[in-house]
Amino acid sequence: MSEELTVVAVDAMGGDNAPGELVKGAVNAVKDEDNIKVILVGKEDAIKKELGKYEYDENKIEIRNATEIIATDEVPTIAVRRKKDSSLVVAMKMVKQGEADAVVSAGSSGAILVGGQAIVGRIKGIDRPPLAPLIPTSDGVALLIDCGANVDARSSHLVQFAQLGSIYMEYVMGVKNPRVGLLNIGAEEEKGNSLTKETYPLLKELDNINFIGNIEAREIPEGAADVIVCDAFAGNCILKFYEGVGNMLKAKLTSVYKKSAKNGMGYLMVKKDLNKTLKAFKTDEYGGAPLLGLNGLVVKTHGSAKAVEVCTSIKQCVTFKQQHIKDRVTEHIAVK
Amino acid sequence: MSEELTVVAVDAMGGDNAPGELVKGAVNAVKDEDNIKVILVGKEDAIKKELGKYEYDENKIEIRNATEIIATDEVPTIAVRRKKDSSLVVAMKMVKQGEADAVVSAGSSGAILVGGQAIVGRIKGIDRPPLAPLIPTSDGVALLIDCGANVDARSSHLVQFAQLGSIYMEYVMGVKNPRVGLLNIGAEEEKGNSLTKETYPLLKELDNINFIGNIEAREIPEGAADVIVCDAFAGNCILKFYEGVGNMLKAKLTSVYKKSAKNGMGYLMVKKDLNKTLKAFKTDEYGGAPLLGLNGLVVKTHGSAKAVEVCTSIKQCVTFKQQHIKDRVTEHIAVK
Repeated sequence: MSEELTVVAVDAMGGDNAPGELVKGAVNAVKDEDNIKVILVGKEDAIKKELGKYEYDENKIEIRNATEIIATDEVPTIAVRRKKDSSLVVAMKMVKQGEADAVVSAGSSGAILVGGQAIVGRIKGIDRPPLAPLIPTSDGVALLIDCGANVDARSSHLVQFAQLGSIYMEYVMGVKNPRVGLLNIGAEEEKGNSLTKETYPLLKELDNINFIGNIEAREIPEGAADVIVCDAFAGNCILKFYEGVGNMLKAKLTSVYKKSAKNGMGYLMVKKDLNKTLKAFKTDEYGGAPLLGLNGLVVKTHGSAKAVEVCTSIKQCVTFKQQHIKDRVTEHIAVK
Repeated sequence: MSEELTVVAVDAMGGDNAPGELVKGAVNAVKDEDNIKVILVGKEDAIKKELGKYEYDENKIEIRNATEIIATDEVPTIAVRRKKDSSLVVAMKMVKQGEADAVVSAGSSGAILVGGQAIVGRIKGIDRPPLAPLIPTSDGVALLIDCGANVDARSSHLVQFAQLGSIYMEYVMGVKNPRVGLLNIGAEEEKGNSLTKETYPLLKELDNINFIGNIEAREIPEGAADVIVCDAFAGNCILKFYEGVGNMLKAKLTSVYKKSAKNGMGYLMVKKDLNKTLKAFKTDEYGGAPLLGLNGLVVKTHGSAKAVEVCTSIKQCVTFKQQHIKDRVTEHIAVK
């Protein structure tokens, strides 16, 4: 039993809705999953107060006191180094020391990236751990890897991103033989900038991924690839632009429906199905973005995550552990 | 009179709808504008046949025979060098030789970029002519510069893009004191990759543009900047992704409205206003993308452009000439 148990340290103080939604998400997660234990890290009093609102199995939730909080406007490297008793740093140390398998945080992205590398640590052989959010496509999701810190990535980094992303999609998301595409500005091998031109032949040579060649940004929403490999500058541009277009769209549709009483009635008739469709544009609906290639899983959820996303993020960690992702990474990539 | 006349050479054989829509667009343009003359370049018989369908002022449209056509799947450098009697090359030579002020083409993007530099030629002091499409925002348009060939741009190139874009938006599009933003993955000066970090201080120093700092991709649809400066890899990703999201959106909405008879009725009620709104997602609605910094204007319209976009592209050239854009560029940038 203890072998199968996944222990998730949740940074209960990070994000816009901390600690309330973090605690609620944890309570829901331990109700849904059997082999899980959540350790809520942060100010004990605040967490206890929130926990008091729910009934739950007390063997499955613990509190670990941490007195400091890292704010989103702090310089990540300094904050992680100095705030040794912050909820994020304490949670990450638990992974390093083997007390937890994974960390879930809705806090500062920069601090999560820095802490992941500096505290949790990289798997031997992994050069640059990428952050890989799932983004919606017309009929599913795709992993956009990297959206983290590797803005001046080299081709050797992209090769590792491709392999890490492929393992994640196959074993955590259950996509068989995931299609790996290189984000580029043309379909042909010789297209692109120096980075993509250098990366293409390296990806083509790999025998442990299903490389389908270049994919253009136009094809992303169609679901042309399961894993989209890029440097973090391009990845962040795509991710943020998706969010911006979604917001613009919602505002535009609202203005249409408010324009006249007739339009308003038209809206009422399609409301239910329309809102379901528009949800596809929410890039934060699919749980958290894993920071891959570390000695343990670090999952970053959106700063504005609610209990439902927190819960999904926590449960992601169970699959990650049960599928022995770290071992797979070591076997497939790092050892080579 | 002849001093004020703008002569536009139209590549009548380029694009999916050539020569029909190109000819029709030219006829409409000479009807709308007084001080314009269009030279339709391409296979004389085919052009004559199309022209025969319309009534127009014969002093304002000429045909220049060119027997070859550059296809979109040809290698641009080779095609431009070898096909000396292609409609695109002949049209560009007319600009070089002073017979025309501008070229409009819906043909191969690669050939337009190559021909622009090799045949029309750069203004002295301009290093890398950028291609700058207008993209829709929530309440207008923004110039995305560069979406051309400069995928491995240097900071000095981005500085010129910023200046060229600012001049274009101010004098051709009539935006007063256009806000110039650097596409980046964070708001602060120190954010980004090595290119944006190097470019930011250079833009800040310029006294001939209204630099507003970094803008994130999320802010583009809100209309946070009039000129968005980036390398062509990022620019093309944004441009193509916009197109892809627009297509996805349209497909999703159609599926909502087809889902039930009730939804279908709801659609009929909002149809008119909704379609007007969705047009905002069409990145090819705003005429053509200028290739800036050349000894004459080269405008690339979408490969699938119809007469209305061709007409807008041709009329753009008139403003370009009347506003003496080339002189302004020479004064503000090249001479420095």
